[in-house]
Amino acid sequence: MTGIIKRICTGVEIFFLGVAGCAVPLLLPDCAHAQLFTFSRQELADYTAQSSFDRLPDGRPKVPDDLLERARDLSSEEVWAVLQEKGFNNQYADGFQILHPGKTMVGRAFTVQFMPLRADVDDVAEAKAKQHGLQRLTNQTAIDMLQPGDVLVVDLFGKKVDGTIVGDNLFYYTMQATRQGGLVVDGSVRDLDGMAEIDMPAYFRAADPTPIGNVMLTGINIPIRIGAVTVMPGDLVVGDREGVYFVPPQVVKELLDRADEIHIHDEWTKKKFAEGKYKSSEIYGSPTDPKLQQEYREYLKKRLEEIRKQRNPQ
Amino acid sequence: MTGIIKRICTGVEIFFLGVAGCAVPLLLPDCAHAQLFTFSRQELADYTAQSSFDRLPDGRPKVPDDLLERARDLSSEEVWAVLQEKGFNNQYADGFQILHPGKTMVGRAFTVQFMPLRADVDDVAEAKAKQHGLQRLTNQTAIDMLQPGDVLVVDLFGKKVDGTIVGDNLFYYTMQATRQGGLVVDGSVRDLDGMAEIDMPAYFRAADPTPIGNVMLTGINIPIRIGAVTVMPGDLVVGDREGVYFVPPQVVKELLDRADEIHIHDEWTKKKFAEGKYKSSEIYGSPTDPKLQQEYREYLKKRLEEIRKQRNPQ
Amino acid sequence: MTGIIKRICTGVEIFFLGVAGCAVPLLLPDCAHAQLFTFSRQELADYTAQSSFDRLPDGRPKVPDDLLERARDLSSEEVWAVLQEKGFNNQYADGFQILHPGKTMVGRAFTVQFMPLRADVDDVAEAKAKQHGLQRLTNQTAIDMLQPGDVLVVDLFGKKVDGTIVGDNLFYYTMQATRQGGLVVDGSVRDLDGMAEIDMPAYFRAADPTPIGNVMLTGINIPIRIGAVTVMPGDLVVGDREGVYFVPPQVVKELLDRADEIHIHDEWTKKKFAEGKYKSSEIYGSPTDPKLQQEYREYLKKRLEEIRKQRNPQ
Amino acid sequence: MTGIIKRICTGVEIFFLGVAGCAVPLLLPDCAHAQLFTFSRQELADYTAQSSFDRLPDGRPKVPDDLLERARDLSSEEVWAVLQEKGFNNQYADGFQILHPGKTMVGRAFTVQFMPLRADVDDVAEAKAKQHGLQRLTNQTAIDMLQPGDVLVVDLFGKKVDGTIVGDNLFYYTMQATRQGGLVVDGSVRDLDGMAEIDMPAYFRAADPTPIGNVMLTGINIPIRIGAVTVMPGDLVVGDREGVYFVPPQVVKELLDRADEIHIHDEWTKKKFAEGKYKSSEIYGSPTDPKLQQEYREYLKKRLEEIRKQRNPQ
Amino acid sequence: MTGIIKRICTGVEIFFLGVAGCAVPLLLPDCAHAQLFTFSRQELADYTAQSSFDRLPDGRPKVPDDLLERARDLSSEEVWAVLQEKGFNNQYADGFQILHPGKTMVGRAFTVQFMPLRADVDDVAEAKAKQHGLQRLTNQTAIDMLQPGDVLVVDLFGKKVDGTIVGDNLFYYTMQATRQGGLVVDGSVRDLDGMAEIDMPAYFRAADPTPIGNVMLTGINIPIRIGAVTVMPGDLVVGDREGVYFVPPQVVKELLDRADEIHIHDEWTKKKFAEGKYKSSEIYGSPTDPKLQQEYREYLKKRLEEIRKQRNPQ
Amino acid sequence: MTGIIKRICTGVEIFFLGVAGCAVPLLLPDCAHAQLFTFSRQELADYTAQSSFDRLPDGRPKVPDDLLERARDLSSEEVWAVLQEKGFNNQYADGFQILHPGKTMVGRAFTVQFMPLRADVDDVAEAKAKQHGLQRLTNQTAIDMLQPGDVLVVDLFGKKVDGTIVGDNLFYYTMQATRQGGLVVDGSVRDLDGMAEIDMPAYFRAADPTPIGNVMLTGINIPIRIGAVTVMPGDLVVGDREGVYFVPPQVVKELLDRADEIHIHDEWTKKKFAEGKYKSSEIYGSPTDPKLQQEYREYLKKRLEEIRKQRNPQ
Repeated sequence: MTGIIKRICTGVEIFFLGVAGCAVPLLLPDCAHAQLFTFSRQELADYTAQSSFDRLPDGRPKVPDDLLERARDLSSEEVWAVLQEKGFNNQYADGFQILHPGKTMVGRAFTVQFMPLRADVDDVAEAKAKQHGLQRLTNQTAIDMLQPGDVLVVDLFGKKVDGTIVGDNLFYYTMQATRQGGLVVDGSVRDLDGMAEIDMPAYFRAADPTPIGNVMLTGINIPIRIGAVTVMPGDLVVGDREGVYFVPPQVVKELLDRADEIHIHDEWTKKKFAEGKYKSSEIYGSPTDPKLQQEYREYLKKRLEEIRKQRNPQ
Repeated sequence: MTGIIKRICTGVEIFFLGVAGCAVPLLLPDCAHAQLFTFSRQELADYTAQSSFDRLPDGRPKVPDDLLERARDLSSEEVWAVLQEKGFNNQYADGFQILHPGKTMVGRAFTVQFMPLRADVDDVAEAKAKQHGLQRLTNQTAIDMLQPGDVLVVDLFGKKVDGTIVGDNLFYYTMQATRQGGLVVDGSVRDLDGMAEIDMPAYFRAADPTPIGNVMLTGINIPIRIGAVTVMPGDLVVGDREGVYFVPPQVVKELLDRADEIHIHDEWTKKKFAEGKYKSSEIYGSPTDPKLQQEYREYLKKRLEEIRKQRNPQ
Repeated sequence: MTGIIKRICTGVEIFFLGVAGCAVPLLLPDCAHAQLFTFSRQELADYTAQSSFDRLPDGRPKVPDDLLERARDLSSEEVWAVLQEKGFNNQYADGFQILHPGKTMVGRAFTVQFMPLRADVDDVAEAKAKQHGLQRLTNQTAIDMLQPGDVLVVDLFGKKVDGTIVGDNLFYYTMQATRQGGLVVDGSVRDLDGMAEIDMPAYFRAADPTPIGNVMLTGINIPIRIGAVTVMPGDLVVGDREGVYFVPPQVVKELLDRADEIHIHDEWTKKKFAEGKYKSSEIYGSPTDPKLQQEYREYLKKRLEEIRKQRNPQ
Repeated sequence: MTGIIKRICTGVEIFFLGVAGCAVPLLLPDCAHAQLFTFSRQELADYTAQSSFDRLPDGRPKVPDDLLERARDLSSEEVWAVLQEKGFNNQYADGFQILHPGKTMVGRAFTVQFMPLRADVDDVAEAKAKQHGLQRLTNQTAIDMLQPGDVLVVDLFGKKVDGTIVGDNLFYYTMQATRQGGLVVDGSVRDLDGMAEIDMPAYFRAADPTPIGNVMLTGINIPIRIGAVTVMPGDLVVGDREGVYFVPPQVVKELLDRADEIHIHDEWTKKKFAEGKYKSSEIYGSPTDPKLQQEYREYLKKRLEEIRKQRNPQ
Repeated sequence: MTGIIKRICTGVEIFFLGVAGCAVPLLLPDCAHAQLFTFSRQELADYTAQSSFDRLPDGRPKVPDDLLERARDLSSEEVWAVLQEKGFNNQYADGFQILHPGKTMVGRAFTVQFMPLRADVDDVAEAKAKQHGLQRLTNQTAIDMLQPGDVLVVDLFGKKVDGTIVGDNLFYYTMQATRQGGLVVDGSVRDLDGMAEIDMPAYFRAADPTPIGNVMLTGINIPIRIGAVTVMPGDLVVGDREGVYFVPPQVVKELLDRADEIHIHDEWTKKKFAEGKYKSSEIYGSPTDPKLQQEYREYLKKRLEEIRKQRNPQ
Repeated sequence: MTGIIKRICTGVEIFFLGVAGCAVPLLLPDCAHAQLFTFSRQELADYTAQSSFDRLPDGRPKVPDDLLERARDLSSEEVWAVLQEKGFNNQYADGFQILHPGKTMVGRAFTVQFMPLRADVDDVAEAKAKQHGLQRLTNQTAIDMLQPGDVLVVDLFGKKVDGTIVGDNLFYYTMQATRQGGLVVDGSVRDLDGMAEIDMPAYFRAADPTPIGNVMLTGINIPIRIGAVTVMPGDLVVGDREGVYFVPPQVVKELLDRADEIHIHDEWTKKKFAEGKYKSSEIYGSPTDPKLQQEYREYLKKRLEEIRKQRNPQ
C-alpha cells in the first residue's frame, strides 16, 4: 500500500485551516486567519450585500434551489443579454475542455485559489500552523467543505503539469458532495478516463497524469480570477457548450424571468420558420407585420401563463 | 419584449440592397450597386463561364441536384486528387470547429463578405441607401436570399467576439431554406447548444455569446476568401471531418466519376486485406501480381456497371 | 485506373531494404545496412537487455500477450506513478488528436523514422539500393513488417501537409496486421472519415488530404523521438484519453501488479464515498481511521485473491 | 543572366491593367474594369467625400504635405484619443515586425489586394486581358503607380511563404518613388538584410526567402482589410514602435491640432515631474492645485503661439 | 484642455485608500482595509520574517543600497544557481518584451494587483470609500507611493487592450521616483516611442494605444503572481536579457558572495580559453589538471581580496 | 568553489566516446561505436560523395576557406534561387532568435544530436563505456572537437528548460575554436547577457537560466534534423537576418558564382532606380528596353572581370 500512499502524497498542497478551536462550519473567519489571503465573513457579506437571498452557513449568498433548477435551461447567450444590460461585461470565461458537452452545468460558486509554491512563505505558514495546533490546507480541505448545489471553481493559473485539482476519486467525491454540481478549473485534471464515467460537468484547461504539486493553497471562498472574470463566492455558475458564466446572485431572478420570454420567442420563431412561409427578417428578431406582432404577443402571454402554472401547480 | 428586440439589434449589420424598384431576384446588378463591392451578373457569368451547368436566378452556376447527391460520398482526399491534377492547389480550408463530425456537407456556395465597421464609409452607405429609398444590408438580408441546396459561406475575417453570423434561430432558418445545406464561416456562431440540436453541418472558427456587431456587410455573392481559398459563388462545397473543399463547378462531373473508381478501389483493397493473405504493398496502391491486376480490373468494371444501373434504373 | 495509381505515387517514400539475399525476417542487420540509420540486432539486444521477455523475430523484446491484455485496464496516471519511482520522467507524450477516445490503446512499439527529403542523400541511397538489387524503403515497407500486438509509432516530425502516414486503406491493413494494435504518429493521417469507421486506436497531430511526400524513411525499429520521449522498439505503448505512455518492457510486470492495487483502492474509495458518511480526507489517499485502514487492507487482500484466481482459474 | 530572370519570374503575379487605349494616370476607371474588384473614380469620390482636401490624379484624397510633415510627431496614443471620440474604433493594426523601430512612418495609403491564385478565374482574366490587348497586373504594376508621400499598403492575407511583396530592389524603388513613404504588408518581405540598409519604414508579418507567387492581384486602390481595419485609399497612415493607424483624411487636421496640445501637456508634465516636488496625481492627468492649473494654461497658450509662429514665420 | 483630461479619465482605475485620518506612510494597515485584498503590516512582517534587513516605512524588507549596487552585475544564471540550492524553484518569469535589453534591472519589489472590473464589487467599494471620506485607488495612487530603489511589479493578468499600467508620462514619473528602478508588468504599456527615450528598464507583455480601463486595483504590496512566480513585497528584482528573478531578501547576501566567485571563475576560464592551449573540458567547469586547479585557487583568492578591498577602501 | 562545480554538473550530458585506445582524430568509426547512433567514416564519405572538396580529418567535406569567405556576402534569397533549381526544397530553417542580426554567419556544419534522457538506455551506455575504459559523451566532448571554420549545429528538439547547449563560457570557447564560426541550436542558450558581448553569430529558439540536463547526447557528425531540414555534416551553413540555409557542398561553387551575378544585377538595378527616370518594371527583373539590356550586359561583364581580378590579383 506504500505505493498508493506515495502516489497521493507527491501532491504538495499547503496552508492550514483552523480546526482545533473552531466550530463547524470550518470557514469561520476567526479561524481562517492563517490563509495567505483571508476574506472575513463580514467582508463576504459586505461585498455580496446586493444579494437578498439567504446565506449558506459559510456566509455565501444562497441562490435558491428552485432557481438553480430553472437555470438548467439557460444558454450563455441569454445570460449575456441580461448581464450586458446590467453593466457586467467581464463575467464570461471560455477556452475550456468540456467533459460532457451538452450537459448544462449549474450551481453556486465555491472558490479556491492556489499560487506557485514559495519555500519561505510556506515555512512561515507551516510554523504558524504548528503554533496553533492546526493542519495544513490542501485541495482536499477545500473539497471536504463543498455543499450540495456547489460548483468547485479553482484558480490554478492555467497550470497543466502538477496542476491537477482532482483525479477520478476526488471528482467522484465532488459529484457526491455537490449532488452533481460541477467543476471549473483554470488548471488541469487527471484520470480523465475515470472522470469520463462520472456524470458531472467539468471545465478544465488540460488533462495530465501528474498529481497536484509545487503550489500552495492561498484562499478558500475569496474573490478569485478565472480567465478575465472576477468570481465571487456564491455566484451562480452556468456552463454550456461554449463556456462558463459567473452570475452575481442579485440578477439571477430577473435573468431567469427574461430567459422564459426568450425561450418562448425562440419557440415561436422556429414554429413560424417551420411553416416555410416567411423570410427570416419578417419574423426575427421581431415580426415586421403588425398582425404577426399581435400573434406573437398573445402566444407569449399564453405560454408564460402555462409556464407559471406548471411551476406553481396549486 | 423590448429586451428581446434589444438583444437582436445590438448586432449592427449594414449596407443596403435594392428592394423598392427591383424585381425578384434581389441581386439584380442594377439594384445592388450600393454594396461596397459589387460583382455584376455579367462579371459573375464571365468569371464562371467554364461551367456548363444551368444558372440559378441570381446568376450562380447551378451544380445539378443529382450531382450534389452523389457528392455526399466524397471525402477530402478524393477531391484533392482531382483538383491537384487540374492545377487547383488552393481550394481547401481547414482548422474549423465542426458541428456534426461524420455528417458530410454538400452544397452550392452562397458567399457573403463582411469587413470591419468604419464610421465614415458607413455614413456614405447609409446616405446612398436613403437616397434610393432602400434598406440597409444585414446578415439577415443575405440569409433571406438562400436557396435550397446552398451552403452559406461567410468571410468574417476570423472574428470571434461580435463575429457570430447566426445563433440557433437563424441557423434553423438556414437549415429550412437550404434544405440542410450547411454553413461555413471564417468567424463565429452563438447559441451552440441550440445549434447542436439542429441537423445541418456547420464549420466555424469559434462560438461566442455575443451577437454580430462592429462590422459591415460589404458583398453578397462576390468572390471571397476563406482561409487561403478564393471561393466563387456557385462553387460545390464539400465538407468532411477534416475540412472543406470549394470545387469549381466545371470539374464536378469528372471528380465524381473518378470518385466512383476510387470508392471501388478502396472497396476491393479492403476486401483483399480482409482475406489476410497479402502484404499491403502487394495490393495497394496497385496490385503487383498481374493476376490480381486482372481481378481488380474485372471487379472495377462490374461494380461501375452496377453503380450506373443503380443510378439509372431505366 | 491511372488516376488511382497517380494518387498513390505522389507520396514519395524512399530508402531501401535488403530483400534479395536475405532470409526472413526482413530486418536482419546485414541486409538493412542501406538505411540511413541502422540499429543492428545486437545493438537492439544490448540496449533492451534489461527486458527478460522473449524476443520477436525482428529482435524486439516481446511483452507477453497476457500482460498486454492486463494493460488494457491501465490509465496514464497509474503508469506515471510507477515510472516516476523508477526514474523514467520522459516517457509520456500528449497533444494528439485521438481517433476513438475511450478506447485504450495497448501494444508493442514498432518504430519508424522519417526525415525531410534531401535530394543528394536520396540519390546516394538509391544508387546503393540498385547496386544491391534492392527496392526502396517506403511507408508500406514498414507497414508490411507489422506483427500482431504491435502499435505503429512514427516520427514524422510533426508534419501536417505531406506528412500523412496512412489513409483509410493502410489504416485498415494496419488494423488487420496488428490485430487492432494502434497507431501513434508525430505527423498526420488522411481519409479521416474512412478511418473513423475502423475500430483501432490512433493518435495523430493533424489530418490532411495530401498523401505522404517530400520525406525519406530513415530507420525502422531504431530509437526514435515522439514529442519529448525516446521510444525504443518493443516498448509497451499505452494510450488513453490524455496521451500515450511508452513503457520500458522491464517494468511492465511490476507496473501491472501495482495497477491491480490501485484499481482496488479506487474501487474501495468510491464505495466508501458512495456511502456518503465520510469527508474525502478521511478516506483518500489513505484512511485516517485505523479501523478503516484495517477494513481496506482486508478488502485489498480479498480482491487481489479474486483477481488472481480469475486470471489463473486453475 | 538567365538565372536572374528565372529568379524573378518564379513570382507569379497576375491580372491585367488597361494600358493600350488609356491615358495617364493608369487607374482610370474605364480601363481598370478588368480587375476582379473595381472601385471606380466615382465610387472612390463618394466613399471619401467627407475629405475636403485636394485629390491625387488617381482620385485619392490628398492629405497636404505640410500636414504629413506635422504628423511625423504623432504617436499611436494621440491618434487613438481623437479617433475614439469620432467613433472610429477599428483603425489600428499591430503585431507587425518593424524594420526601423523609432522611425515614425507617415504617408497616404496606396492600397493593393491579393487573393489566393485560382486557375479558372486566372484563365478568364488572362483571356479578358488578351482580348483588350492588355498586360497582366503584377505587384510591379502597382508599385510603378506609387506617388511621393505614399505608403504602400498591401493585403496578402498574412501569407509568409510566397507572400513577399518586395525584396530589396523593389523596396529601394518604393523608397525612391514615395520619397521614403513606407510599406505595410499583411504578408511578408524578402532580402531583409538588403532592406535593412534602406532608410524607409516597413511593417510586415514575416520575412521569407521565397518570391511572391501562388496569388493574384485583385485590386488597386480599393478598400482593403489589414488585420481588423478597413483601409481606404488616401487614408493617412501613421506607424510607430507599437503599430499602424489608418486615419480618415477628414479628421487629420483636428487630430494634429489636438496633438499639439498633448505634446505641450506632456512637455509641461515632465518638466514638473523633473522638479521632484509633486506626486504624479498632483500633476497628471490634470493638476489638482488651481495655481498649477493656471500655470499650465499659460504655458499651453505660450507654447501654442510659439509653435504656430514657427510654422508660419511670416 | 478638455480633450487631454478626457484622454486620461477613460482609464477607469478604482478602489480607495485611507487618506483622511491616516498618518504617513499611506499603507498603514488600519487605513488600507478598504482594499479588496489586504495584507496587514503584521502579516507582511510575519511572512518576510526571514529577512534580517531593515524595513521600509511601509513595512517591506529593505535590501540595502550597497547590495542593490552589487546586484547590477548579476545574471539570471547566477541567481538560478543559488535559488535552486535553497529550494526556490518558482522565482523566475520570462516571455516579456524588454525596453532596454542590455541594461540590467535591479530593485525592491513594490507590488500591485488588478482584477477584472465587476460592477457590483465596485459599487460596494465606492460606497465604503464615501463612507470613510476616502478617494478611490487608482494606478496613480500606487505609483505615488514608490520609493527610490523600487521596481514597480504589477499583475494585470496579461491584459493587452485596456491593460496599460503607464504611458510615457507616468513612466517618466516612475523613473524619477524610483531613481531608475524599473517596471515589470504582466500586462501592457502605452506610448512606447516616448518610453524608449526614458532610461529605465521595463518588462511588459505588449504595448497598446489604449489607456488602462475595465479593471479594479485590488491590492498594493500584497503577495502577487507574475507568470508562475509568487512575488512578495520587498523581493530583490533582477532583470536581464532573458527575464526577471524575484529573490527573497534573506538569500541576497549569499547570492551576491557566490556571484563574486562565479564572476572570477568566468574571468579565469575565458582567460585560459584565450590562450588557445586547452580543450574546453580541461578548464571548464573545473580544471582537470591539479596544477591548473592550484592556479585557479590562487587566482580566486587574489581577486576576491582585490574586490573586497575595492568595496571597502578603508 | 564547490558551488561553481555543482552549478556545472547539474547539466547531465551522457554517452561516451572512444578515447583510450583511439588515435586522433577522435571520431574514428571504430571508436565511436558506443554512440547510440553511429555514422561511420565510410557512410559519411558515401553520403557526401558528390562533394569534390578535400575532407577534414574527421571525414566531413571541407568547403575551402576562400569559398567560405566569399559566402559572407550571400543572402538567403540567393541561396534559395540556386537550391530551388537543384531540387533542394528543404534546406532552410527559420524562427530563430538571432544574437547579432546583421552579422552574416558562414561555416561548415558540425552536427550534434541529443534525445530525451531515458534511464535504461543510459545505464546500458554507461556500462558499455566502463567496459571499454571510456568516458561519457557530453556537450563539451562535442565542443572540444570543433575546428576553425565550423558552425556548431545542434538538435535539442526545441527544448527550452534544461536545453541550453552553451552559456557564455562555452560560447566563448566555441568562438575561439571555430574562429568566430557560429552556433545553430534547435534548443536554447543561457547567459545571454554574457553571450551578447561575444562577437560570433548564434541562432537559437530561446534563452533560459537552467543548465543543460535531462537529455543524452546520441550522435556527433551524423545526419540531424533542424526544423524541416536534414543537415549533413560538412554542409555550408549560411545565416542572415531571416534564417539559416544548409547548403550541400557540391553546389557551393555554382551558388557563389551565380551570387556574383545577382549582386551585380542588384547594384545596377539600384543605380538605375536612383536615376529616377524609370518605372520599376522597365528595369527589374530584366530591362524591357533592348538598349538597357545591352547596357546591363556590358556592365555585368565589366564588373565580373573586376571582381575576378580583385580575387586573383595575380
